[in-house]
Amino acid sequence: MQLSEATWPEIEDCESDLAVLPVGSTEQHGPHAPLGTDAKTAAAVAEAGVETYRERTGEDVPVAPTIPVGIAAEHRAFDGTLWVSPETFRAYVRETVASLAHHGFDRVVIVNGHGGNTDALREVTGTISREDDAYAVAFTWFDSIDTDEAMGHAGPVETSLLSHIDDEAIHEDKIAAAREGASEGWGEWVAGVNLAHDSDEFTDNGVVGDPTTATAELGEQLLARSGEALADLLDAVDNREN
Amino acid sequence: MQLSEATWPEIEDCESDLAVLPVGSTEQHGPHAPLGTDAKTAAAVAEAGVETYRERTGEDVPVAPTIPVGIAAEHRAFDGTLWVSPETFRAYVRETVASLAHHGFDRVVIVNGHGGNTDALREVTGTISREDDAYAVAFTWFDSIDTDEAMGHAGPVETSLLSHIDDEAIHEDKIAAAREGASEGWGEWVAGVNLAHDSDEFTDNGVVGDPTTATAELGEQLLARSGEALADLLDAVDNREN
Amino acid sequence: MQLSEATWPEIEDCESDLAVLPVGSTEQHGPHAPLGTDAKTAAAVAEAGVETYRERTGEDVPVAPTIPVGIAAEHRAFDGTLWVSPETFRAYVRETVASLAHHGFDRVVIVNGHGGNTDALREVTGTISREDDAYAVAFTWFDSIDTDEAMGHAGPVETSLLSHIDDEAIHEDKIAAAREGASEGWGEWVAGVNLAHDSDEFTDNGVVGDPTTATAELGEQLLARSGEALADLLDAVDNREN
Amino acid sequence: MQLSEATWPEIEDCESDLAVLPVGSTEQHGPHAPLGTDAKTAAAVAEAGVETYRERTGEDVPVAPTIPVGIAAEHRAFDGTLWVSPETFRAYVRETVASLAHHGFDRVVIVNGHGGNTDALREVTGTISREDDAYAVAFTWFDSIDTDEAMGHAGPVETSLLSHIDDEAIHEDKIAAAREGASEGWGEWVAGVNLAHDSDEFTDNGVVGDPTTATAELGEQLLARSGEALADLLDAVDNREN
Amino acid sequence: MQLSEATWPEIEDCESDLAVLPVGSTEQHGPHAPLGTDAKTAAAVAEAGVETYRERTGEDVPVAPTIPVGIAAEHRAFDGTLWVSPETFRAYVRETVASLAHHGFDRVVIVNGHGGNTDALREVTGTISREDDAYAVAFTWFDSIDTDEAMGHAGPVETSLLSHIDDEAIHEDKIAAAREGASEGWGEWVAGVNLAHDSDEFTDNGVVGDPTTATAELGEQLLARSGEALADLLDAVDNREN
Amino acid sequence: MQLSEATWPEIEDCESDLAVLPVGSTEQHGPHAPLGTDAKTAAAVAEAGVETYRERTGEDVPVAPTIPVGIAAEHRAFDGTLWVSPETFRAYVRETVASLAHHGFDRVVIVNGHGGNTDALREVTGTISREDDAYAVAFTWFDSIDTDEAMGHAGPVETSLLSHIDDEAIHEDKIAAAREGASEGWGEWVAGVNLAHDSDEFTDNGVVGDPTTATAELGEQLLARSGEALADLLDAVDNREN
Repeated sequence: MQLSEATWPEIEDCESDLAVLPVGSTEQHGPHAPLGTDAKTAAAVAEAGVETYRERTGEDVPVAPTIPVGIAAEHRAFDGTLWVSPETFRAYVRETVASLAHHGFDRVVIVNGHGGNTDALREVTGTISREDDAYAVAFTWFDSIDTDEAMGHAGPVETSLLSHIDDEAIHEDKIAAAREGASEGWGEWVAGVNLAHDSDEFTDNGVVGDPTTATAELGEQLLARSGEALADLLDAVDNREN
Repeated sequence: MQLSEATWPEIEDCESDLAVLPVGSTEQHGPHAPLGTDAKTAAAVAEAGVETYRERTGEDVPVAPTIPVGIAAEHRAFDGTLWVSPETFRAYVRETVASLAHHGFDRVVIVNGHGGNTDALREVTGTISREDDAYAVAFTWFDSIDTDEAMGHAGPVETSLLSHIDDEAIHEDKIAAAREGASEGWGEWVAGVNLAHDSDEFTDNGVVGDPTTATAELGEQLLARSGEALADLLDAVDNREN
Repeated sequence: MQLSEATWPEIEDCESDLAVLPVGSTEQHGPHAPLGTDAKTAAAVAEAGVETYRERTGEDVPVAPTIPVGIAAEHRAFDGTLWVSPETFRAYVRETVASLAHHGFDRVVIVNGHGGNTDALREVTGTISREDDAYAVAFTWFDSIDTDEAMGHAGPVETSLLSHIDDEAIHEDKIAAAREGASEGWGEWVAGVNLAHDSDEFTDNGVVGDPTTATAELGEQLLARSGEALADLLDAVDNREN
Repeated sequence: MQLSEATWPEIEDCESDLAVLPVGSTEQHGPHAPLGTDAKTAAAVAEAGVETYRERTGEDVPVAPTIPVGIAAEHRAFDGTLWVSPETFRAYVRETVASLAHHGFDRVVIVNGHGGNTDALREVTGTISREDDAYAVAFTWFDSIDTDEAMGHAGPVETSLLSHIDDEAIHEDKIAAAREGASEGWGEWVAGVNLAHDSDEFTDNGVVGDPTTATAELGEQLLARSGEALADLLDAVDNREN
Repeated sequence: MQLSEATWPEIEDCESDLAVLPVGSTEQHGPHAPLGTDAKTAAAVAEAGVETYRERTGEDVPVAPTIPVGIAAEHRAFDGTLWVSPETFRAYVRETVASLAHHGFDRVVIVNGHGGNTDALREVTGTISREDDAYAVAFTWFDSIDTDEAMGHAGPVETSLLSHIDDEAIHEDKIAAAREGASEGWGEWVAGVNLAHDSDEFTDNGVVGDPTTATAELGEQLLARSGEALADLLDAVDNREN
Repeated sequence: MQLSEATWPEIEDCESDLAVLPVGSTEQHGPHAPLGTDAKTAAAVAEAGVETYRERTGEDVPVAPTIPVGIAAEHRAFDGTLWVSPETFRAYVRETVASLAHHGFDRVVIVNGHGGNTDALREVTGTISREDDAYAVAFTWFDSIDTDEAMGHAGPVETSLLSHIDDEAIHEDKIAAAREGASEGWGEWVAGVNLAHDSDEFTDNGVVGDPTTATAELGEQLLARSGEALADLLDAVDNREN
């Protein structure tokens, strides 16, 4: 149930104390995938998860609108990347969750599509759960599923998922070039420490991994598995004593 | 040109120094219109404006993703209304504009769909223009066009526009009820001062004005006129000495 | 009753739960009117209002000292203009109101003399009323009375009021020059949007409107009508259920 | 030269790089002296100082309007005491000084009338001088003159000065009672530490010291000596290399 | 070279642009290890690293004093645990690094002894490197070495290291009890998400892992390997183009 | 009882509601004394005080770890001086005290070794005592004892105390040079105002006072008297009604 599509009396009738808040990022995803990739994937996984949960339990969980701009200064060398500071991002998420809780949706799963948001979401969900009138956790879809492929950035995993949910979004004619300019791994590591704070220090075109191996079929599987994982999480959050 | 749909090389190729940032709100719009009304209208007007501008000038102006949650504590008595504090809202807008400016889009028109955001946007665009490396102004679509109908809230103007851009979003069967519980005007005024800080102090169902007079035809006109007005503004901003 | 002139036992004896907080600005008012104009007018209107209210009801309402520096960066091109950031201004007002409320004066009317403070006062009175132990509204005197003359800036309305309350403050010999360098209206408008963030973008000497039409007689009327309006508001605030 | 009484062209003509900013407090001063005592004394000393300096040097130094509310939570048990947090106070002072410096008055002496402001003013003048485009110091008048009487609070020193500058402000008929309820010293000390954070922990009526010994003659001397001291300081600040 | 033990002329003579800042935490470490464990281990590893680096290069790198209180709200159910908010922690680290950079030590390695600090240090070192006049990275010693034992909390790895560096700090007689009340792993996981924000949700006595397997010999090896890893990192940071 | 050396069950067994928090600074102390002087002296006095208190009352008071970096921008011209802003320092202290209070240690004496921290500690202990669930006061050891020698900076008092507690820390061979470059007094005073915000404005080598008169014997006395004074204060705080 998309909260933005509902009227307030419909939300008033909603008996769940669960809510889902998708969080994306608007940032470079190489020459072949759009800047909005992380928002699209977060929204798609959120929808798949609540649909699976509804099929299992009959309970409708509202999905808040996707927060489109996250923590992405590390990609700022690539045009079009938008970002806010971690402080502002946490405040925006925290206060949005507080307003969900104000209406009784006080068990909130944040569905995240961007690795750069992960640390901040772990922090802010801890803060919310300790200090506010809500319990929150953050679910980053690609950390919740096992894949043969490494995650990378705009690599096979994201490209596959996006191919499935919005196949026009992928520029097929740029995928070969995407592989050419990609790095194999994220960062520049010495003694367990990543010396690179920004992605242009190690990738020429912003890509990490080989997107030529991406398929819409894999994307379909990834979405299904992410949706199952999110439904499992919603179930656990619903049944947890707080 | 939707920035979220573009790849970073496409944005790099974009020569405009203009950008548009739509800002909505997720808040009650009576029993007949969805919580996402203000985000939908802001996005539609932004798109109409840059399309008109492109037709006039041949210049493609990127439209950033719509900021979905704004300043709406005044509607918090109605379920599903989401809001952040004015401080957080201003920070989120300011930093998003700064990242646009980082890529050379340093003349930014914020397209706003919600009256409650207006004061904060006037403040933050002043701050940006004085202190940051960008010039920004805020365009609130319903303040830029003349209508026979008063704006209200979820009244004839918004309902008409939404009927045109997303006719499934309006619950026609609730419009009569919407009129029943509506107030005639916004607020509770004494000596030029509105004593009511929240909308439930003066409207039973959140509506102000009579939405039964709304039509998709009027909505089509409103969108066209808003798009023309926004194109006029883009032209003025583009040609202004800063 | 001026709070600053009273002793603490006198304030302890005061039974009202109302208080008035005048807020001005120290900013250019053209070549003929002093930088302190907005503080002077706010203080005068506040005094007139509580006096009228006392005559009507017998109740003495304390008037806090006038906050002298407000939001006036838009006039910073003109010498002597002082300003603080909107954040600091709101904090200073909010905490001053909180200290009034600490003593039982928890229905506070802010009497404002400067247009640039209006947005911030609307925001902070909302915040106070929702989150703190007080109810507050902001009364901007020139928005509460009908005049044949447009407000402008250092124009006929302000100049008239000041002529009445402090006639030595007006430099009569500069009024002709004031008209010469004045603009007719505030701002530079396209599509309902003011492109000018600062006043020197549209007025040569800081004046908007024609101050040569000002008279002390009009000023006397304006003060009386503002005082009546403020007394009406105090009455409404006193009788309102919160 | 009172900045508030001047027009902007008059300030533009002012060639000094010095400015004076009086800072008071609105707080209990016993049963006999008004809540505005510290603002009145700060303003009077500021005026005396710039007048003495003008007589000595011929140079006119602008005096900004008095900041009326300071750091006074320690007196909040007594009615009518107003206060803001130290953070807000420092921000208000710092930004006001920055706006003076914007116009070239970048050597600012803050004239303080309240002991509770002293620590914060020492801190903020250091911050201004190190980080902003201005040099600032704080002058607390009663710390700059030698007196036979201890300062106390609403005691002989303050009462004398106020008797001189505004003799109607002192309630002579309450001075005997003021002595009765006064404490002899400020605070409750063990091992060099004041255990009392608030004044009601050690004084019944807010007074410290014996105001019955106050005289207007002493007040006149105090004002003259404070004015001389401030003029000395202005001279030193003017001649200092920064 | 311990900065705290040096005089300022000795630091002035130091030609390195590297510095090390140890960061610990004061938090429960089970019934057998002291609350200061993470500060002790961070300090020991920092010292070992700069000593190894000095042996290799002849260059003396100053070690700042250990920051003793970090982010540890997750352990607050256990007595004696101290913590500050992530915001305050980041500010304290950032400003300390800025003061190191002020003296020319503008390549700073933060040596961290506590897992709960990791996210915040990754964030703040990114902020420092992007926005301030310094480059910084964070080295968490137990993430930089391979061990057969899982890290846990107050488990075999930490207990071994502490046994080596301060053997009186370990209460040998409590180690059996420590194992009894320990959990096997950190957290409570569903779908890749840790539902537990606080450690008392999954461990009875605060311990994770089996400290009975700890030995001082292993601790000696861990310290040596951590020191080697840190020296490798210092070398890489010293030679990196920024 | 050093909190850092204790395990959490040992702290749980501690029945006191008192705690001591030492606060130092890492800053220049001339050519003869180490940058860590103020942290060392604060820690030593804290330990002496709780030991004396334990001898008198049998009650064990936990001593938190010493906060090593304080407010010392005034010494930043001398290498190795570290500092944080007053805001960050106050936040770090306040939150550390709040975590002590969380465990029942809600009467906290801050033992301070640095004059530059004094104003901020007075402010933050007031804030804690008024707004948080704790009572706090700050004890600056050299303000609590009478000495024949003036305090200065790295002068006879500090040098003596340090000679006693850590005699290797003093570079005896630099003491003559320390006297040579020292100033006689702190600051540059006109009309009761210190014009110098930074120490390098009045001392060549950072020293104020003559450290050649320092002796370890005097240091021993100073420590004993400081410890007695702190024990007196702990007793008063323990017995005070809050």
